[in-house]
Amino acid sequence: MTDKTALTPARHTAPPARFSHGVRKGGILQVAGQVGFGPAEEGRPPQPVGPGLREQTLQTLENVRAVLEEGGASWEDAMMVRVYLTDTAHFSEFNAIYDEYFAVLDQPPAARTTVYVGLPAGLLVEIDALAVLG
Amino acid sequence: MTDKTALTPARHTAPPARFSHGVRKGGILQVAGQVGFGPAEEGRPPQPVGPGLREQTLQTLENVRAVLEEGGASWEDAMMVRVYLTDTAHFSEFNAIYDEYFAVLDQPPAARTTVYVGLPAGLLVEIDALAVLG
Amino acid sequence: MTDKTALTPARHTAPPARFSHGVRKGGILQVAGQVGFGPAEEGRPPQPVGPGLREQTLQTLENVRAVLEEGGASWEDAMMVRVYLTDTAHFSEFNAIYDEYFAVLDQPPAARTTVYVGLPAGLLVEIDALAVLG
Repeated sequence: MTDKTALTPARHTAPPARFSHGVRKGGILQVAGQVGFGPAEEGRPPQPVGPGLREQTLQTLENVRAVLEEGGASWEDAMMVRVYLTDTAHFSEFNAIYDEYFAVLDQPPAARTTVYVGLPAGLLVEIDALAVLG
Repeated sequence: MTDKTALTPARHTAPPARFSHGVRKGGILQVAGQVGFGPAEEGRPPQPVGPGLREQTLQTLENVRAVLEEGGASWEDAMMVRVYLTDTAHFSEFNAIYDEYFAVLDQPPAARTTVYVGLPAGLLVEIDALAVLG
Repeated sequence: MTDKTALTPARHTAPPARFSHGVRKGGILQVAGQVGFGPAEEGRPPQPVGPGLREQTLQTLENVRAVLEEGGASWEDAMMVRVYLTDTAHFSEFNAIYDEYFAVLDQPPAARTTVYVGLPAGLLVEIDALAVLG
């Protein structure tokens, strides 16, 4: 019996409900949907880091990375990245940021699905990831 | 070679196409998107249990649970819960119901992603889940 | 340490960003979101095969299949199929095409979640899949 471990990066804001930012069990690591919230600040509600797609995307990817690393993994272990944007007009700009962020990887990049959905006001992007370790 | 097993809770309505309510292969169990349909009734098309978010959410979570249990798993084994709502205005109420439902768990709660999409008329929520056993 | 392998069917168009059409690591194979693009043609941007749901759906399913096969898997190994449609009015027609496509399978069909989202102009359907081998 392998334990399921919750992955909670120290600077992450608390999830808005009873879910984990990430969980690992054996070689499987799942990262919850991350958004562009900056580091938690005592007594202040979570806020996206900037009004723009670029700032939010980079922060979101860093938030995913923090969860991966909390579980002993890295982007190299990511199998799938799910991207939720809010506007099809953001696709090219998002891809440029994504390519820049993943310019250096020691393994093939993860697969990805990108769809356009509604998100809470102020959020332009949400990303989750599945990783396999070992 | 491990077999893939279909998971079909006895009281579930038949899927509207050639897919399984859940499948398990080795230690991986995937639950298909569940909605708030009540138990199947002979000669009656599937119906959501109530017009409200609360009834549909609780029924949907129970439907996911039934598939997990059909595969020898429980919420304790869930790694990821994907929540599809139709209205961002439902987020707080949904989270309150979710927290109440998961008040008692012997393992860390699953990760979660919540996005807002279109669903067939009458449905307010759809949920699927990935579990890892063993 | 198991390697992560990128899966790149020869006739697939290049992904629009730094992601893989599919990756396999050990027994886990993830297919990226596929759309109804026909085979790559030198010097021509990717194009969906037809204006209609039927042509796009069949091509999309074939594109998923090509990635599965590139990784030594088949639809028999698929655990989860995620379907993104753009219009709830397409649900019945889509299900009929899906059932026809999966009429013959040697294993129980995969689980499935279907939601309605925005996609880039001209695309009516996007599909990804998770498979477990062995």
